[in-house]
Amino acid sequence: MRDFVFEVPTKIIFGGGKVAMIGAELGAFGIKKPLLVYGKGSIERNGVYKQVISSLEKQKITPVEFRGIRPNPVLSHVYRGIELARREEVDGILAVGGGSVIDSAKAIACGSKANGDVWDFFIHKAQVKDALPIFCVLTVAASASEMNGAAVITNENKAQKFSIRSPLLLPKVSILDPTTLFTLPAEYTANSAIDIITHMLEGYFNNSASYSPLQDGLIHALSKVVIQATEKLLVEPYNYDERANFMWAATLGFNGITNVGMGAIAFPVHMIEHSLSALYDIAHGAGLAIILPAWMRYFLEEKASRFALWGREVFEVQDAAACVEALCSWFSRIGAPVSLEEAGIPVAAIPRIAANAHELARVWSLKDYNQQNIASILRLAAH
Amino acid sequence: MRDFVFEVPTKIIFGGGKVAMIGAELGAFGIKKPLLVYGKGSIERNGVYKQVISSLEKQKITPVEFRGIRPNPVLSHVYRGIELARREEVDGILAVGGGSVIDSAKAIACGSKANGDVWDFFIHKAQVKDALPIFCVLTVAASASEMNGAAVITNENKAQKFSIRSPLLLPKVSILDPTTLFTLPAEYTANSAIDIITHMLEGYFNNSASYSPLQDGLIHALSKVVIQATEKLLVEPYNYDERANFMWAATLGFNGITNVGMGAIAFPVHMIEHSLSALYDIAHGAGLAIILPAWMRYFLEEKASRFALWGREVFEVQDAAACVEALCSWFSRIGAPVSLEEAGIPVAAIPRIAANAHELARVWSLKDYNQQNIASILRLAAH
Repeated sequence: MRDFVFEVPTKIIFGGGKVAMIGAELGAFGIKKPLLVYGKGSIERNGVYKQVISSLEKQKITPVEFRGIRPNPVLSHVYRGIELARREEVDGILAVGGGSVIDSAKAIACGSKANGDVWDFFIHKAQVKDALPIFCVLTVAASASEMNGAAVITNENKAQKFSIRSPLLLPKVSILDPTTLFTLPAEYTANSAIDIITHMLEGYFNNSASYSPLQDGLIHALSKVVIQATEKLLVEPYNYDERANFMWAATLGFNGITNVGMGAIAFPVHMIEHSLSALYDIAHGAGLAIILPAWMRYFLEEKASRFALWGREVFEVQDAAACVEALCSWFSRIGAPVSLEEAGIPVAAIPRIAANAHELARVWSLKDYNQQNIASILRLAAH
Repeated sequence: MRDFVFEVPTKIIFGGGKVAMIGAELGAFGIKKPLLVYGKGSIERNGVYKQVISSLEKQKITPVEFRGIRPNPVLSHVYRGIELARREEVDGILAVGGGSVIDSAKAIACGSKANGDVWDFFIHKAQVKDALPIFCVLTVAASASEMNGAAVITNENKAQKFSIRSPLLLPKVSILDPTTLFTLPAEYTANSAIDIITHMLEGYFNNSASYSPLQDGLIHALSKVVIQATEKLLVEPYNYDERANFMWAATLGFNGITNVGMGAIAFPVHMIEHSLSALYDIAHGAGLAIILPAWMRYFLEEKASRFALWGREVFEVQDAAACVEALCSWFSRIGAPVSLEEAGIPVAAIPRIAANAHELARVWSLKDYNQQNIASILRLAAH
């Protein structure tokens, strides 16, 4: 176990019907005029929008609306959000949505308090020093952004999907109401599951400390919960208990609990996937389903014992190769693409994707990765 | 999964040598004159006291010393601590020790800010409204008091070992330095292990929600870590990695992560044990080793499936009875008593212990327990 600091003061309010508490929580922080950040209307269709507005009204809180955040959220939207936040002099940000919405909210929260360009934080040219307070109502459980200080944004002009992390971006309060997930399309549930598992596996496969049975055990347990819940939810989307297990597992999977003490964690699968979604706007989970098995095939010998251990614990298979195959068929079974071909991405694009990923490898200091081996991994994902 | 609120802002600083950071952490909170609460001198022998004092000196922080907290900490000491804290007008409490020291610090922290008697909080006659800020340097890992809002104190005049819980009693900062555990006597390590496991099993066996694979999985994983680490540490007390696994597992075992969502949790094993240690001043872990197997025997049929599940996952045994026996022999193997007789407590005392436990059953609203069935459980612990 390596040295660590764990400090995650986010208040989690968990349960069916808890969306109605958001107004009082903002009120307790003295928020009068928050920027309300959300997506393209799913919260209007499933009733969450109405619950949020009515809860804010009861506290006489008047939000400034900023609508239209899309999956793989883009920098140009963040700039518009920052402009609006400044012009309206909002005193907080309320994100109602999943990782894309919360990450956009975080970028706006620090960007609107910055003197320079918010993108400087993403390319490690500047450090976050101040941010508006952030509140969340979660409606897609995957990123754990509701209980961590990270955010991922795509600079669409440069085709760069980069990230930031700061304690100042930890949400003050996040409401996790499993009933908001009932109407989530099956594809979203599957992609979320892949994202949650990959978050945990990056540390499980790529940490700089000696592996600890504590982190291993937590990751085995949460992986199994996510897999079982996903299978059930694809058949019974309104199963409250499984939505609840899935939702809390997503948060615990990437709020630090499972990976503090791991030392430096590399995220090579995310690194390569970020290029896929920056260039082809593929869903993040789908991109991970393509890259993770290919990455595992590339490192099959080097990391055999880790792959075999996870495979034994989670899929009850006996060796590393069987683990990759079991994971791959599980991704297929829940409807995710497991090759570039299945996602309609041409093999001819591999050099361009590899070049793009290599830029992020440099920003993230992943020194073992170059255009050649990234391309080799991508070739293993071709068909 | 039942509704829950999880809000644990305690900053954890984890790692070898981190004790030296305590001064700066108090300094960051503007603390100038803390009450330094500790035990009977083990921190002087192992060098932690010197590290703390030198770290405070560097920040020009002058502590008021309050020494002599004993295991099963008593109310009369808490009263003396409150008096000293008031007289010296301290601005915070620094606990250097294990659960007994931290719990005493918490009682002093709220007691010195209360108008009435601090014991009123323990008998649910009054609620904690204010408390001095609490900081910890942990030197015995078991209670998780370093990252929760609970405290247990014995009123020795009434022979009552009762508890309080308040978000105001959550420590601001806790330093977890695994090297402080190196010189812990084997008996303490064993008793700590029993305490950690029992904390998790009370919820695992006695929660009011339907059992969730998420909480089950986390508890299986942490139970195995504690058992494996303990066995190794009894042979290699200076094994850093195992001390680290043990220390972080103790915190996660009772900081809310494993039991939020369980609804109301009953603590019948703790309830009965509290009477053993209130009346006979037995070590808490040793008392739990006596009561837990007896309690499981009493409920063997009613809770067979839960006992069998935990036994299968943790000890690889096949049924409930085998689980109790495996647990009992493990307690014996690590040196704990598993009967009243082994602890030198006369069987004739059972009615008196049962009457004492029943008082706590009333305070904790454990309506299924009366003097008769508590006595029956104790008789199963006789030899």
